Amino acid sequence: MKTLTILGATGSIGQSTLDIVRHHRDRFAVDVLVANANIMQLAADAREFGARMAVTADEDRLEELRDALAGTGIETAAGEKAVLEGAARPVDMVMAAIVGVAGLKPTLAAVEAGNTVALANKECLVSAGELFMRRADERGVQVVPVDSEHSAIFQCFERHNGARVERITLTASGGPFRERDLQSLHEVTPEEALKHPNWDMGAKVTIDSATLMNKGLELVEAYHLYPVSADQLDAVIHPQSIVHSLVSYVDGSTLAQLGMPDMRTPIACALAWPERIEAPVERLDLVALGRLTFEAIDPQRFPAPSLALAALKRSGNATTILNAANEVAVEAFLQGRLRFTGIVSLVMETLDAAEREGVLGSLSDLDDVWQADSYGRRRARELAPVLQAQV
Amino acid sequence: MKTLTILGATGSIGQSTLDIVRHHRDRFAVDVLVANANIMQLAADAREFGARMAVTADEDRLEELRDALAGTGIETAAGEKAVLEGAARPVDMVMAAIVGVAGLKPTLAAVEAGNTVALANKECLVSAGELFMRRADERGVQVVPVDSEHSAIFQCFERHNGARVERITLTASGGPFRERDLQSLHEVTPEEALKHPNWDMGAKVTIDSATLMNKGLELVEAYHLYPVSADQLDAVIHPQSIVHSLVSYVDGSTLAQLGMPDMRTPIACALAWPERIEAPVERLDLVALGRLTFEAIDPQRFPAPSLALAALKRSGNATTILNAANEVAVEAFLQGRLRFTGIVSLVMETLDAAEREGVLGSLSDLDDVWQADSYGRRRARELAPVLQAQV
Repeated sequence: MKTLTILGATGSIGQSTLDIVRHHRDRFAVDVLVANANIMQLAADAREFGARMAVTADEDRLEELRDALAGTGIETAAGEKAVLEGAARPVDMVMAAIVGVAGLKPTLAAVEAGNTVALANKECLVSAGELFMRRADERGVQVVPVDSEHSAIFQCFERHNGARVERITLTASGGPFRERDLQSLHEVTPEEALKHPNWDMGAKVTIDSATLMNKGLELVEAYHLYPVSADQLDAVIHPQSIVHSLVSYVDGSTLAQLGMPDMRTPIACALAWPERIEAPVERLDLVALGRLTFEAIDPQRFPAPSLALAALKRSGNATTILNAANEVAVEAFLQGRLRFTGIVSLVMETLDAAEREGVLGSLSDLDDVWQADSYGRRRARELAPVLQAQV
Repeated sequence: MKTLTILGATGSIGQSTLDIVRHHRDRFAVDVLVANANIMQLAADAREFGARMAVTADEDRLEELRDALAGTGIETAAGEKAVLEGAARPVDMVMAAIVGVAGLKPTLAAVEAGNTVALANKECLVSAGELFMRRADERGVQVVPVDSEHSAIFQCFERHNGARVERITLTASGGPFRERDLQSLHEVTPEEALKHPNWDMGAKVTIDSATLMNKGLELVEAYHLYPVSADQLDAVIHPQSIVHSLVSYVDGSTLAQLGMPDMRTPIACALAWPERIEAPVERLDLVALGRLTFEAIDPQRFPAPSLALAALKRSGNATTILNAANEVAVEAFLQGRLRFTGIVSLVMETLDAAEREGVLGSLSDLDDVWQADSYGRRRARELAPVLQAQV
């Protein structure tokens, strides 16, 4: 039995994780479930899976959670401290699936406790990659990625041949605007941008897919997860989202991972690693698909991926600022305060401001992360109206 | 330094092997080079690579070889016994690249000696798979495939998750006739059939690619190389020959190996395994390729793959007979004595005759292989004119 803690149990990744566990009750024992405010779901899952402990991040909901689990013997707790303690309980694997910067401290707590981490939180690597991976290395903690692209790379990356990897290529769906007239890109509305052909995702991630900033962030993650330089990282547009990423070796051999777009495959991969377990997903049928296509990313249409690679080369906190500015930019776009093309421009201008103002530097501790993150948000908020006013 | 013996040194695989070794003189020491009648090439290679021994299979050429290597200190030998002794000298790896049934005994000699075998000879698995793999298992010998499809599977097959493999899919170029009018397929001439779009191969292999019998033979090889049943083996047409094969797992994940069609990549993979070394080949460029397409194999147009899978289920010697009958059939076709569509029909009829005549059975020793092989050849020769006479 593998003991499992899920941070972000009631979110999309958390629920898919529980769906896999549901099919393998003989392999996994749920230790801690951590959620935010969805107490009914949290309690129902804790009961169904016989969790040892249920934790809500919201201190005010402790009584509600207690009532919902009365008589079950399941331990309950609430608040930030309880979340960190829950993450640090010794288990075989922690699924780190809290969304956003809020996931950073709990995931780091799991790492500090020496728990193997299945990483679904982007910010650990994008906002704090330098710090996060240093701590994981120091603690001897294996980080198993859950994101479909990084899971693909993880499955294709021969650890003993790391120095023989020539190139890592991430695939990008290209989003809804890869063929749209370039001149009209600035007119894109939030409604248009929120339609995504392949994956069912939240609004923020869907906009990131439309600007290809998601690919920029994933390039940053790949940089931290694998022993490669920024120059060895690349992305191509692959509209069908079947090939999830590729690893090329010095002998001319390229390994790729393919599958239908269903997060339960990379989740099952991470949960079972280094073994594999059955997942209730549709199987790949190449004949039914017929063809897989690949296109270069036009840097004029989609400047985000190269911006992210450039940020990686600048400093440890440059991608923290990039990520913070992007969140502000996407929010401004969704609220009609910024043009679609303004999203990446705002991130770029925020990074340039950080360089001018001497803010760029390395990440020694979490304070450095918070400072860079606040700077990015504040500066992007200041710059957004200026950018929007420009014709 | 890895010591290396090459059986079939002057053939296409042998020469490509030496080309890889040429780029890695610091990693490989050539022990024995074995060739047939191309004494000048054998001697030149033995000199260039400082081989310890050069062997020709042709007893009458010993003096010629001796003269060509006079004063070099390189040992020389000739004849079948010398070939077997050369194969059995203890080395780190034997590249088994003698073409045809002639490769069986020398490769088996390498296995019996406990040498790791890089296997490029098809007949070891197609004609003698049951016997060959049993001896390799008993001797604890690792067989590393060299054929591009099996190298792809080898790279994607997680040995510790062998029981979690759901399906192995081989790719087939489809040859020149995948879109030809089905009614006119029997009119195909040898000249038409000898044009192959992607790989540069000999006549026999090119015809096998046109009938897809090559894929049938490769399915047989895959069956012996990997712990899967015949029902888990499949093939699809992929005209670009970029995806060399795929392995699908129970979690919905499919791993694939891609690369330009250049045998030096799988050769470098095999030579360096479990490491990887640089190969001087063109790199994969998905954007330049643009698209990869996949089609089902029409069993009416291409009955060979399912015939081979059916033979696997019949008996250990059924694929020996299949392979022998196919060689006779291809020869008859190339000489204008058999229609193109008659090739696979002749193989089918030979197998049916074997069943009727009680010839099918298992392979206990090499005599069983020779008997089945002779039966297949003799019976196919008898049946060819009968089949050709039918309208």
